[in-house]
Amino acid sequence: MATPLAAFAERERLHLLADLSDWLRIPSISTQPEHAADCRKAAAWIGARLQRLGFRVETIETGGHPILWAVGPEVPGAPTVLCYGHYDVQPPDPVGEWISPPFEPTVRDGNLYARGTADDKGQVFTAVAALEALKATRGSLPVNVHYLIEGEEETGSKGLTELLTREPERTRAEAVLVTDTNIVAPGRPSVDAALRGMIHAEIHVRTLKADLHSGIYGGAAPNAIETLWHLLEKLKGDDGRIRIPGLYDKVKRPTAAELKAWRSLPIREKGFKEEAGAKGLNGERKFGFLERVWSRPTFEVHGIVGGYTGPGSKTVIPAEATAKVSLRLVPDQKGKEIAALLVKAVKAAAPRYADVKVTVYATVDPAQTKLDSRAYRVLDRAYREVYKRGIAPIRSGGSIPIVPLLQQRSEAVLLCGVGLPDDRLHAPNEKLTLEQIWKGIVLFGRFFELMAEDK
Amino acid sequence: MATPLAAFAERERLHLLADLSDWLRIPSISTQPEHAADCRKAAAWIGARLQRLGFRVETIETGGHPILWAVGPEVPGAPTVLCYGHYDVQPPDPVGEWISPPFEPTVRDGNLYARGTADDKGQVFTAVAALEALKATRGSLPVNVHYLIEGEEETGSKGLTELLTREPERTRAEAVLVTDTNIVAPGRPSVDAALRGMIHAEIHVRTLKADLHSGIYGGAAPNAIETLWHLLEKLKGDDGRIRIPGLYDKVKRPTAAELKAWRSLPIREKGFKEEAGAKGLNGERKFGFLERVWSRPTFEVHGIVGGYTGPGSKTVIPAEATAKVSLRLVPDQKGKEIAALLVKAVKAAAPRYADVKVTVYATVDPAQTKLDSRAYRVLDRAYREVYKRGIAPIRSGGSIPIVPLLQQRSEAVLLCGVGLPDDRLHAPNEKLTLEQIWKGIVLFGRFFELMAEDK
Repeated sequence: MATPLAAFAERERLHLLADLSDWLRIPSISTQPEHAADCRKAAAWIGARLQRLGFRVETIETGGHPILWAVGPEVPGAPTVLCYGHYDVQPPDPVGEWISPPFEPTVRDGNLYARGTADDKGQVFTAVAALEALKATRGSLPVNVHYLIEGEEETGSKGLTELLTREPERTRAEAVLVTDTNIVAPGRPSVDAALRGMIHAEIHVRTLKADLHSGIYGGAAPNAIETLWHLLEKLKGDDGRIRIPGLYDKVKRPTAAELKAWRSLPIREKGFKEEAGAKGLNGERKFGFLERVWSRPTFEVHGIVGGYTGPGSKTVIPAEATAKVSLRLVPDQKGKEIAALLVKAVKAAAPRYADVKVTVYATVDPAQTKLDSRAYRVLDRAYREVYKRGIAPIRSGGSIPIVPLLQQRSEAVLLCGVGLPDDRLHAPNEKLTLEQIWKGIVLFGRFFELMAEDK
Repeated sequence: MATPLAAFAERERLHLLADLSDWLRIPSISTQPEHAADCRKAAAWIGARLQRLGFRVETIETGGHPILWAVGPEVPGAPTVLCYGHYDVQPPDPVGEWISPPFEPTVRDGNLYARGTADDKGQVFTAVAALEALKATRGSLPVNVHYLIEGEEETGSKGLTELLTREPERTRAEAVLVTDTNIVAPGRPSVDAALRGMIHAEIHVRTLKADLHSGIYGGAAPNAIETLWHLLEKLKGDDGRIRIPGLYDKVKRPTAAELKAWRSLPIREKGFKEEAGAKGLNGERKFGFLERVWSRPTFEVHGIVGGYTGPGSKTVIPAEATAKVSLRLVPDQKGKEIAALLVKAVKAAAPRYADVKVTVYATVDPAQTKLDSRAYRVLDRAYREVYKRGIAPIRSGGSIPIVPLLQQRSEAVLLCGVGLPDDRLHAPNEKLTLEQIWKGIVLFGRFFELMAEDK
């Protein structure tokens, strides 16, 4: 027999689908200034929805798109859950590749197609619908719920970063529910228990006042591109190991339980390789591919440029070369500490004949959720009820800059989105699977209930 | 007392200066299609001058600017000297930096300023004036003289390359006089006894079908830029040594006589470094800087590009990266053989997970003149008479693609231009020092005479 929550989800699905579609029709593209009014409209839309649920909704102005801060009806003695999501979306380009238009939500084969379904309006809506289901079936919410919904996630979360840096108390909650990720496979609940951090930097090499003739000077005058590649080789070897002294000092291997959970996942190296479009994988081969991507730091060069790159050839010794680099960091590494190690390693590797500059643009600390928190156990129990299967604690190789800040006053940041791996985020034909919405309503509903009940 | 040749040069200098200026006023810029008629005019101008000397002048059409082929009056039993030069010039840009307009020849401080003075009209004119001096002072030329004057030197000598490949017999001569270079310092006669050859190539690396997200795949998916830098590191080490197997097999050190001559030159490492605009030099440090530049092969990357190179950062794992490379070759190395070694080395260094392509665009063989040929000795004797100092056999690190072809039927290619190192070829305020022209007339005149007389 269906639970009251499941019954609500089933009964209301057409209304819910119609309402979500209204929200998705608003092209709240945060990167495009001409859509600033749409962003504001999308914020107001979800704000009104929370208001109907009895939330006190505040619109916090930023230099860019506003943040919604919403505080639910007080439930004395009950724990507080902070929910995070974003109402902004990526541009729909290339528009021609969409089967149905990006801002005309369309159902096909059990999926809802539109820009912003999985990332992130559809997921925010699912959690809000769960609260509506609780209100409808119980008369009130079982816990204190706070909402932070930003409109700059796709552009770097500048406003929210400033807000939470200035006012960390807003993150005081037993758990932070982040509904902006996916589970590992249909029917296989998972939570991103750790995220990698990140350092963005640029390395610039100058060896000469100006480019020189490679005939007249070649053999003795230093080539900036060559200097750069020798430098990069000193920072990372062909074996995938990063040669920045001290980099691995605080890197821990995943726990045995995590590794066991990862081995049980329906993700195989062959499939990963095909998905990556690679003939073969590389990196630190003594670790499995998931361990490399989820729990090892990386050093990548994202772009390199130097010398003559036009058509044909020009036999110059280039005076300058630049590499845009990043490091991904793993739990216990600190962005600022590793950035200092990077700068030191570059300086040490730079030859005396060259001027080498390294500029650190940004650092993001890694994030990790303790798997033994009460909130994590509650979520696991909710999943077992709804999915008949507990959570696999996976990780994400990516970085969500706002997560370390959301975690300031809370031990349990739960990255428990209901997306699926094939949702095509940022790409044409983004979708969210309807079944994930309906089950998500029940899942989140049970999570809120159990947060109040479970001891 | 002045020799007859010197007396001619002195008496005629105003006429010669006026005539050369007429030629220099024709903007025969071979790279700019709108100057095609000027190129033809410049060819006709020098052709008419040779005709007045009794040369049979032929205009050979090419796909581009025509070649002049001129055969002097037959001198039975006398040796043949082939003279090479070019009538085309580089564009004058940046025009604003010229003190006097590039195509209005102007004398200042004993120098003649105009585009094409040193490179190469002024030098061609000097050798032709030497023939005029011989005709005027002796009544006829002492040797058989053939002339090849092309109009595509600044664009790659395509037409002349085709002509000499098809008709190598045109290069049959005891000596080839190439007047398109400079001596090492004022009053210090030198001849470029060897030129480096060259291989132009491009290395392209592909590791993925398309760029990937460095969070989701970083640590396991191969980065094309990283693959490229590891590959380049395998081709050339930080010690300046090229790691292409077999590359050095035929490389010989310069002779003791050459090294001694180089040490006596007024070129010091400090000055070379300053001229290069470098804080320090690099390369194979066990060899002196001149030996590195003049007699060692090089491997240079002229341009590199891959991944995201726009403003800010984009955390992609790049799928592709490209390097434009060249090798400079030294005597006894063959362009095609070394190109094959390069291709083999790249293939051997390429990891299995990547598609690595190396494209060889062009090869130019190195060139060398035997220092014990009669023609070299004759030139040395002429220099001793005129400059009171013999020739320093230097080399050039540069490559002149046409020289190996000019050498097909002649042992002695004499790169004996009368320019000076500060002539600013290809740059604003190009000049030729007048004293070098007047002395050059005597020098070349004595060379032709001694070619007939000296046993």
